[in-house]
Amino acid sequence: MAGTGVFADILDGEVYKYYADGEWRASGSGKSVAIVNPTTRQTQYRVQACTQEEVNKVMEGAKVAQKAWARTPLWKRAELLHKAAAILKEHKAPIAECLVKEIAKPAKDAVTEVVRSGDLVSYTAEEGVRILGEGKLLVSDSFPGNERNKYCLSSKVPLGIVLAIPPFNYPVNLAVSKIGPALIAGNALVLKPPTQGAVAALHMVHCFHLAGFPKGLISCVTGKGSEIGDFLTMHPGVNCISFTGGDTGIAISKKAGMVPLQMELGGKDACIVLEDADLDLVAANIVKGGFSYSGQRCTAVKVVLIMETVADTVVEKVNAKLAKLKVGPPEDNCDITPVVTESSANFIEGLVMDAKEKGATFCQEYRREGNLIWPLLLDHVRPDMRIAWEEPFGPVLPVIRINSVEEGIHHCNASNFGLQGCVFTRDINKAIMISDAMESGTVQINSAPARGPDHFPFQGLKDSGIGSQGITNSINMMTKVKSTVINLPSPSYTMG
Amino acid sequence: MAGTGVFADILDGEVYKYYADGEWRASGSGKSVAIVNPTTRQTQYRVQACTQEEVNKVMEGAKVAQKAWARTPLWKRAELLHKAAAILKEHKAPIAECLVKEIAKPAKDAVTEVVRSGDLVSYTAEEGVRILGEGKLLVSDSFPGNERNKYCLSSKVPLGIVLAIPPFNYPVNLAVSKIGPALIAGNALVLKPPTQGAVAALHMVHCFHLAGFPKGLISCVTGKGSEIGDFLTMHPGVNCISFTGGDTGIAISKKAGMVPLQMELGGKDACIVLEDADLDLVAANIVKGGFSYSGQRCTAVKVVLIMETVADTVVEKVNAKLAKLKVGPPEDNCDITPVVTESSANFIEGLVMDAKEKGATFCQEYRREGNLIWPLLLDHVRPDMRIAWEEPFGPVLPVIRINSVEEGIHHCNASNFGLQGCVFTRDINKAIMISDAMESGTVQINSAPARGPDHFPFQGLKDSGIGSQGITNSINMMTKVKSTVINLPSPSYTMG
Amino acid sequence: MAGTGVFADILDGEVYKYYADGEWRASGSGKSVAIVNPTTRQTQYRVQACTQEEVNKVMEGAKVAQKAWARTPLWKRAELLHKAAAILKEHKAPIAECLVKEIAKPAKDAVTEVVRSGDLVSYTAEEGVRILGEGKLLVSDSFPGNERNKYCLSSKVPLGIVLAIPPFNYPVNLAVSKIGPALIAGNALVLKPPTQGAVAALHMVHCFHLAGFPKGLISCVTGKGSEIGDFLTMHPGVNCISFTGGDTGIAISKKAGMVPLQMELGGKDACIVLEDADLDLVAANIVKGGFSYSGQRCTAVKVVLIMETVADTVVEKVNAKLAKLKVGPPEDNCDITPVVTESSANFIEGLVMDAKEKGATFCQEYRREGNLIWPLLLDHVRPDMRIAWEEPFGPVLPVIRINSVEEGIHHCNASNFGLQGCVFTRDINKAIMISDAMESGTVQINSAPARGPDHFPFQGLKDSGIGSQGITNSINMMTKVKSTVINLPSPSYTMG
Amino acid sequence: MAGTGVFADILDGEVYKYYADGEWRASGSGKSVAIVNPTTRQTQYRVQACTQEEVNKVMEGAKVAQKAWARTPLWKRAELLHKAAAILKEHKAPIAECLVKEIAKPAKDAVTEVVRSGDLVSYTAEEGVRILGEGKLLVSDSFPGNERNKYCLSSKVPLGIVLAIPPFNYPVNLAVSKIGPALIAGNALVLKPPTQGAVAALHMVHCFHLAGFPKGLISCVTGKGSEIGDFLTMHPGVNCISFTGGDTGIAISKKAGMVPLQMELGGKDACIVLEDADLDLVAANIVKGGFSYSGQRCTAVKVVLIMETVADTVVEKVNAKLAKLKVGPPEDNCDITPVVTESSANFIEGLVMDAKEKGATFCQEYRREGNLIWPLLLDHVRPDMRIAWEEPFGPVLPVIRINSVEEGIHHCNASNFGLQGCVFTRDINKAIMISDAMESGTVQINSAPARGPDHFPFQGLKDSGIGSQGITNSINMMTKVKSTVINLPSPSYTMG
Repeated sequence: MAGTGVFADILDGEVYKYYADGEWRASGSGKSVAIVNPTTRQTQYRVQACTQEEVNKVMEGAKVAQKAWARTPLWKRAELLHKAAAILKEHKAPIAECLVKEIAKPAKDAVTEVVRSGDLVSYTAEEGVRILGEGKLLVSDSFPGNERNKYCLSSKVPLGIVLAIPPFNYPVNLAVSKIGPALIAGNALVLKPPTQGAVAALHMVHCFHLAGFPKGLISCVTGKGSEIGDFLTMHPGVNCISFTGGDTGIAISKKAGMVPLQMELGGKDACIVLEDADLDLVAANIVKGGFSYSGQRCTAVKVVLIMETVADTVVEKVNAKLAKLKVGPPEDNCDITPVVTESSANFIEGLVMDAKEKGATFCQEYRREGNLIWPLLLDHVRPDMRIAWEEPFGPVLPVIRINSVEEGIHHCNASNFGLQGCVFTRDINKAIMISDAMESGTVQINSAPARGPDHFPFQGLKDSGIGSQGITNSINMMTKVKSTVINLPSPSYTMG
Repeated sequence: MAGTGVFADILDGEVYKYYADGEWRASGSGKSVAIVNPTTRQTQYRVQACTQEEVNKVMEGAKVAQKAWARTPLWKRAELLHKAAAILKEHKAPIAECLVKEIAKPAKDAVTEVVRSGDLVSYTAEEGVRILGEGKLLVSDSFPGNERNKYCLSSKVPLGIVLAIPPFNYPVNLAVSKIGPALIAGNALVLKPPTQGAVAALHMVHCFHLAGFPKGLISCVTGKGSEIGDFLTMHPGVNCISFTGGDTGIAISKKAGMVPLQMELGGKDACIVLEDADLDLVAANIVKGGFSYSGQRCTAVKVVLIMETVADTVVEKVNAKLAKLKVGPPEDNCDITPVVTESSANFIEGLVMDAKEKGATFCQEYRREGNLIWPLLLDHVRPDMRIAWEEPFGPVLPVIRINSVEEGIHHCNASNFGLQGCVFTRDINKAIMISDAMESGTVQINSAPARGPDHFPFQGLKDSGIGSQGITNSINMMTKVKSTVINLPSPSYTMG
Repeated sequence: MAGTGVFADILDGEVYKYYADGEWRASGSGKSVAIVNPTTRQTQYRVQACTQEEVNKVMEGAKVAQKAWARTPLWKRAELLHKAAAILKEHKAPIAECLVKEIAKPAKDAVTEVVRSGDLVSYTAEEGVRILGEGKLLVSDSFPGNERNKYCLSSKVPLGIVLAIPPFNYPVNLAVSKIGPALIAGNALVLKPPTQGAVAALHMVHCFHLAGFPKGLISCVTGKGSEIGDFLTMHPGVNCISFTGGDTGIAISKKAGMVPLQMELGGKDACIVLEDADLDLVAANIVKGGFSYSGQRCTAVKVVLIMETVADTVVEKVNAKLAKLKVGPPEDNCDITPVVTESSANFIEGLVMDAKEKGATFCQEYRREGNLIWPLLLDHVRPDMRIAWEEPFGPVLPVIRINSVEEGIHHCNASNFGLQGCVFTRDINKAIMISDAMESGTVQINSAPARGPDHFPFQGLKDSGIGSQGITNSINMMTKVKSTVINLPSPSYTMG
Repeated sequence: MAGTGVFADILDGEVYKYYADGEWRASGSGKSVAIVNPTTRQTQYRVQACTQEEVNKVMEGAKVAQKAWARTPLWKRAELLHKAAAILKEHKAPIAECLVKEIAKPAKDAVTEVVRSGDLVSYTAEEGVRILGEGKLLVSDSFPGNERNKYCLSSKVPLGIVLAIPPFNYPVNLAVSKIGPALIAGNALVLKPPTQGAVAALHMVHCFHLAGFPKGLISCVTGKGSEIGDFLTMHPGVNCISFTGGDTGIAISKKAGMVPLQMELGGKDACIVLEDADLDLVAANIVKGGFSYSGQRCTAVKVVLIMETVADTVVEKVNAKLAKLKVGPPEDNCDITPVVTESSANFIEGLVMDAKEKGATFCQEYRREGNLIWPLLLDHVRPDMRIAWEEPFGPVLPVIRINSVEEGIHHCNASNFGLQGCVFTRDINKAIMISDAMESGTVQINSAPARGPDHFPFQGLKDSGIGSQGITNSINMMTKVKSTVINLPSPSYTMG
């Protein structure tokens, strides 16, 4: 159970501690932040409200720890990560419990998130050994006018301190996808978990603690955004920000200093359906892609752009499947569970009402109880409706009927987002050419958008982000180049 | 005109000279080899019959030249290749003339071969600057148990002397595709051109001579296979053999010593046609793929495996196109020209007669005049006919009707060849899965097999060869790895 | 001569035009900006003072042009760049003339800058063909739990519009090192040249115009920083900023939105001299490294950290060499020429006077006439003097005597800069270990810091910048990742 | 204990079984081969004398197993290898016991060999996941004249059946360094262990059996070279030969068909010692490099080339160290143990006697008892002595005094071998330039030659081999390229 057993250390009475200098601590602020269970709408947990001074100390400790860590053999770094991964998987139950209570993630999916996170950490460890262990050797005589008297040894070195800010929807998985790359690359890591999901994150951090990482190398601070949000992102000690979330990311980008940014923000992933598509496959992917975890996924299908001629059939198939979805609390493994906050539910409702007023067809009756919203397909959505462009982050999906492929591509590219997209067609030429034309970070041919498998590149274009993720790209992104040039007194060519 | 102008130097009376030590020379043998024009069946040119002693001298000179060349800046090597490419393109006319006379290549295609060869040399130069100019820097602490006290600098160094043996059908292009990579990588190069095509090759070599490469670095010896064939391939001075041709390659592989081999031998490229394919596209590709240069191409379509349901339609379309092909001498830019030798024509005829006896359907009347064979499509070919498995290397194409995709794949994979193959279907899933299943070096989806563009990898599996070609792969193949390990007295980690 | 011949088009009376939409235009502002010759301190040239509205139009045009350019074959993009490179080299004389007049660059060096720029553009073209022409193919079954039913095709695509802001000291070379990578990668390019150097840059841009790039793809706007500076860097149309210069870069980083930044800012490159070094080599490199172009180079040696035991000898050798430097106008190819502006000269003087007051030893008499400052070595400099930490960007070099290697490394790493550094020692172990310990983007062993050869990685750490440059890294930096995932209905493994 | 516990299955009475079709079997030949303990010179073990027919069956089974294995997800292949590695390390004791008895390897080193082998297998698994999981995506428009209408997906596919032939000195480690890469790459593996070391190898193979690899995928056949040696290497089912050993490799190369060869044969690794070297480091490395495992290592120091001025000092230091070496049976962890066979001891004695006759200085008395030879340094060796060029593979090391670096390099390069070499000097310029000049696969600066760490490239040049090893290179070497080209009806450029 959360906060018990090996996790007893991380709890101080009713309030979860924060993690600094290799220890679990109560904040000097004497204050805490409440975490409201989306299902019960009652306070479930409390976490420390850390102070700016505490953040400063974390940064100082991280800087010292990082210098030593950067001098630790790669295989030893990997060994510790493998250990953390094993501990994480071993303790999947209490961590999953937090995910159920904090973010209303269906119980089974919560367990999957933790297990997948362990796999990710292990894969990252081995990937990093290779990326950090191999540099380039360049010779001067490639460039006109030069003899071979200069040998350039270029390698990847850590950035320093990485600030990781994951979102509420995958507070464990999207934390370790930042922590793993940062650590194997030789960086220190400061984690600022989302409020909803903070306790799951703290449990996860404890697994790294138990694995025996050097003190100060990993820290986790919780608190109010108004107090430590900008303070963290603008902190001079930070050498990299890896953020997943919403619009805040754009604001952070503008405030942050001269540090590498890895931002994965919102999306409005389009699903273009052509006439020759496998319509059962389409319907299955629309339901899975649009309604899994109640649509609270960056890579959820967020607008369906479907050829008029097949629209009726697909809508019917989707409706049949929606009717079978189980709606209710996450503890019962329902398909549709309460959305994360009341304000989120209100926002979704706003989009739905706007569409209603402007004449969209409701394939289901709109129904909401507290934070729980029943799945809803909106047909005949038109570009003048907000939901054609905005991201509900809920179980509500607009269908726009199109009369040509070009119309679909045009709508997709007119969005300010560019995370993923998908196209359903059997035709190889259309599949490739439409994928090429869609200005999204990734285009899935014949499947719903998806972040994984985790070693695939993953990136948002336009307002959807900057920098590419996926294990390999994240590791690369959390390094910088350093080179040593050996200058010889006369040319020397390697003979064999 | 061939052998005139700047090329006057390479002719000694009636006999073309060989190239050694930076000079054009007559062989001490006093003998020559005749080159018969496939169209006229008369001796067109004569080349030197070099002796084993002359080969030995060439090897000695190459060894010395190579050591100095390996110490030449990469950009200077590239500069000379660019110069050779420009000279080659400038003199396309006389070289193309040789191709017309020696191998009956249609005049226009002959010019194209020379121009494309110049482009290939230039591209190779720039590619090689990058491949040879970049090595790897490895650190010891990737491997368990090691600290970072060893830095390994690994780079690619030349092999030494490369023996290049191109085939008759592209005596210029398939020579420079070996010469370019060998030279930019720092090797010396000994060329043994095919008998048919030798004079074109000698002209091409002269362009390299005019570009000013150091003497001894490039040599070109002509002569009888019985005298210098095995002598060359088994010569202890040879450090790499790059061969394109037929079965001889397998014999060479067995005789050659411990040297890297790049072999591109025969093929029986299958064209699998599915029911949903674009049948006009199919017909166009069968004609282009099967009958260009009278089928004398490694990557010609050599067997059509077509679904019974669409076979009649496609055969009809192909026949309509075949009827329009111009048959005659290469000087007139005919589509179908005489095959390279009488024995080749006889071999083709043997396959045709075997198919006739065993009941294949002749879509056209079989017609032959001297070396000239009219285009012929053989329908209803069955696996018991020789032409189902053997390579005619002529304008004769068998069609096997199949009832399932599996049948097609099975026939393709039962062949001892594995060069290329192609599949025509609109379906993305079938296209990828059939390509994955075909055990050929390359599978073209919706186009006829093709070697180019020249930077693509190109390789034969099974009896079709060893080693991958294409510009990048050829350069890599003509190098070997050398490493320097700097051992430090104590661990050192790069800080940034 | 500047502004004549083919360059007549770029001049409008007394004022040089700006370049937009493929045309040379006068600004609607009716205003111009004066460029003062550092030697004569008189206005030499005038350029347009562009308006924000004109900037907006440039951005709109660039956006349109970029979309078409991204659909242009790589080899055609390269061909145009090769053409521009040739035109640039052909017109080296008038462009070099501008460099002499605008930034007082010694005449010979001015010519070298232009020629080297042409080489850089050509090399960049070929490099880009390779980087953009090769993506990755990833399969899903690398990651635990997956079958091979997903093929990910990942490639590099252009960012969109690149804003290039080069500095005054290499207004041509550091412009093309941004323009070349941006263009070959498929981006549009907006150039904001420095005031001093703007006219040289406009001439250079005209060479690209003459090469025939599509209209709107390249633009060059001049004007007052107060009017269009922030307007450009914060413009929503900009997708990447590549800036070389001083502190301004940090401010830009904070204002810029979520776009990739390539910043190369100031430096305080240290030269660590050990007792076993070749002292003649050291002296030669201190003079070349510290005083070339009057010390106005990012990678100039900016502080000498020398072991006490050899300090006297080296100082003596350096002084002997300084005595031979020719001081005077750039037209006479003097070694030391006037620094770029009066305020720059005043700043240098401030550092010198501070050192004087605090007791540094002046190895030469301090002498200044207008913007011309005679070369000066300051010995016995201590950490409490400003010149120990600040960047004079002039012919004034501090020497700090050290008693241990650690002291040298400590001073180097205490700086807020981290561009380059160098260490002089014969000892292989010390050389590598000190290079590893110095927290600079590049460490040169036994040679002065240097940006080139241009294909080597080049980067500043800490306040010296973000992102790596050098041809390869710049091209990569000006692209983003896009991926297409082909999802198959069942696993498929490639067989061969 | 060997042949007991889990290993009881592999023993049939007195004779160890061979491994085929996932089972341990007795040969139908009814014959066995004796393995003589080098220390006792008595038969220690017996293994099956397999027949050609049994080899044929193994090949058939391997072919079938390979096709299924090539369709197994990469992570599953890796998982099995990790399992085998763990089992191997768990059973290090009985396997090490075999090494002691079969090849007289000192007991401690025998354990180390097994443990290091486990690490190697695990590292190989992860490396292979990455190499096989990533291919290239190439576009057609890189090459002049092409639009982007062709996408080439190129990947690495298994070769088929790999024949692994390791040598006696590391029968476990040099077996797994072939088995690991072969398996992770998707190949089947047939192992022919050396006679001495066969039983250790059979135990190791059993660990793979216990891990649960599919039947037929791995086989291990033992027997007489005269019966199955050439039969194996020339077998048409073999698609790759990976051999480590002596001259036999050259013979194999000439007999083998058109298959990739990875050969690591003999060496005569030179140790060049300069005047400025750290002489204690030199002496320690000569003793470790020349006498570990009684000199029976490919990468042993086999000739010392030392500057006359420091020769006396170094010889004296080496002699002092040699005097301390423990000579005797491997069970006692002696430094010098009996060489592998009597004929080997006789060969060594022949070289020693030749040197004696020609006047070499014996630094120690020559002493031999059975296969046990006492360590011997031969000073003042000259080029006319056999030992200056031949490889003793025993505890006998020649010293050649040189008067210039060039003399040393010349001797090194005059050898027909080119495996490794080393140079001792403090001077960075000399270190690099001498390494560049030495024509060996690897040059170690300031350390004795060494194969490891196992991820470094490792290769012999000239008669020392072909193909590069080390984990990464071995995996690459055991794959071939296959490509799929998607041809589009019109150009398509990826937009982002």
